[in-house]
Amino acid sequence: MKRIVLGVQYDGTPWQGWQTQPNGKTVQDRLEAALQKFTQGPVDTICAGRTDSGVHALEQVVHFDTHLSREISSWVRGLNAFLPSSIAVRWAHELPVPVDGEAADYDARDQFHARFSATARTYHYLLYNNPVRSPLLEGKAGWVFRPLELELMRQAAAHLVGTHDFSAFRAVECQAKSPVRTMEEIRIERRGDLIVFSLRANAFLHHMVRNIVGSLIYAGNGNKPPEWIAELLLQRNRALAAPTFMPDGLYLAQVAYDPKWQLPRQPAGLMPWL
Amino acid sequence: MKRIVLGVQYDGTPWQGWQTQPNGKTVQDRLEAALQKFTQGPVDTICAGRTDSGVHALEQVVHFDTHLSREISSWVRGLNAFLPSSIAVRWAHELPVPVDGEAADYDARDQFHARFSATARTYHYLLYNNPVRSPLLEGKAGWVFRPLELELMRQAAAHLVGTHDFSAFRAVECQAKSPVRTMEEIRIERRGDLIVFSLRANAFLHHMVRNIVGSLIYAGNGNKPPEWIAELLLQRNRALAAPTFMPDGLYLAQVAYDPKWQLPRQPAGLMPWL
Repeated sequence: MKRIVLGVQYDGTPWQGWQTQPNGKTVQDRLEAALQKFTQGPVDTICAGRTDSGVHALEQVVHFDTHLSREISSWVRGLNAFLPSSIAVRWAHELPVPVDGEAADYDARDQFHARFSATARTYHYLLYNNPVRSPLLEGKAGWVFRPLELELMRQAAAHLVGTHDFSAFRAVECQAKSPVRTMEEIRIERRGDLIVFSLRANAFLHHMVRNIVGSLIYAGNGNKPPEWIAELLLQRNRALAAPTFMPDGLYLAQVAYDPKWQLPRQPAGLMPWL
Repeated sequence: MKRIVLGVQYDGTPWQGWQTQPNGKTVQDRLEAALQKFTQGPVDTICAGRTDSGVHALEQVVHFDTHLSREISSWVRGLNAFLPSSIAVRWAHELPVPVDGEAADYDARDQFHARFSATARTYHYLLYNNPVRSPLLEGKAGWVFRPLELELMRQAAAHLVGTHDFSAFRAVECQAKSPVRTMEEIRIERRGDLIVFSLRANAFLHHMVRNIVGSLIYAGNGNKPPEWIAELLLQRNRALAAPTFMPDGLYLAQVAYDPKWQLPRQPAGLMPWL
């Protein structure tokens, strides 16, 4: 038995999110269908971060267990042959399954797990800031037509860095046990008419990035002062923050793991084209 | 009577090119339908460069004549309200129609014409150069999985700059009277995993950019030496050059006009996000 780890990129526009659903219109459903065709049997996958409907991934990390022996490159080529054009496997890596999962002396740290072994996640939010919407970024970037001040948004974002109770930015449906997360870094950069937000945290609550971006925009257009973000954190009341921003510009960009797993990571640019 | 000039951006993926067709699935058909709704009457448009099926435009230039008086900003907002999300009007500009088109003393230079007044066109070709296809650039960039040498492609491209007979890169169906064009500049740059080709010429023949990019790739992957491009030019035989490359990565980027027309141009980055 071995554990195969995949780096998966997808355009989330045509899919109802990552997680499997009865109608089958999700990224997990299509990936598992491709795995079933390639391995000639059912395969269950686990991912690092369950993305919502319309949300993209530059590098989602997924694992599954199999008895099959295949060249590692044939996992990439073989699965891509069965995947739709909006989903692609970018790399594959094989790790041992040292113990049967149910063994009494099982130590989770000895076994790679796409979700539980992840030490940090980075999401990008691409925001098109121009008076006229962009047909070429349709579904791929959020849009704000009023000019935004980067410096105000950076001042606002600085309040979020560190370990905080993020209840103000947590969806009502969020199932996490604790609202406390550690935000390691927020970068905000302009590239032409695009503003790129990069947020790195140990983990994210449901809708957390989109809720934060919505509130940073209120700071960037002068609707609220930067300190308002600090107040929101303290008030811990979702209803006081800005509405959840559109999913179009959200990308799961990178998932961090201990180097001991030796995952074949590509040097991560902001985007493949930035 | 006045002549309205529009700057139009579109994602060509869902459309069968610019030029109107009986089935109505073209950019011109949809723009004229929006104009008809906005002006309550039929409107005929003329564009600077008729793009093929699947080809995009960062800034196509279009004109039409109308008796209607509207605030210039309401042309932008009003038309965008009637256009699908894959097409947007970015700016509008009003110019006089000094003489009736059929008058005996009519001098074409006195009247702006989207096609005939254009002094140069710039096309970009975006090429994704990575072993695995990119779901996020699907339809928006060509793809070559073998590594390409920029320096070899630049050497090859240098042979194309200047005034030449471009018969080797001209589609059989091309209706231009002469195969002679003046290539003013070819820039080839790498941005992450993207290679961006920028070609500026007084005008282009049918399929000329896609045919040139196809042959430059033969130089970039070592299939042919850079001097092969010079031979192709001299041989003037389409059958000896590389096949027409896929339309996905082709963008009509900018059309140049005499500054006297005072068109409201935006500073043209390579792309809105580059």
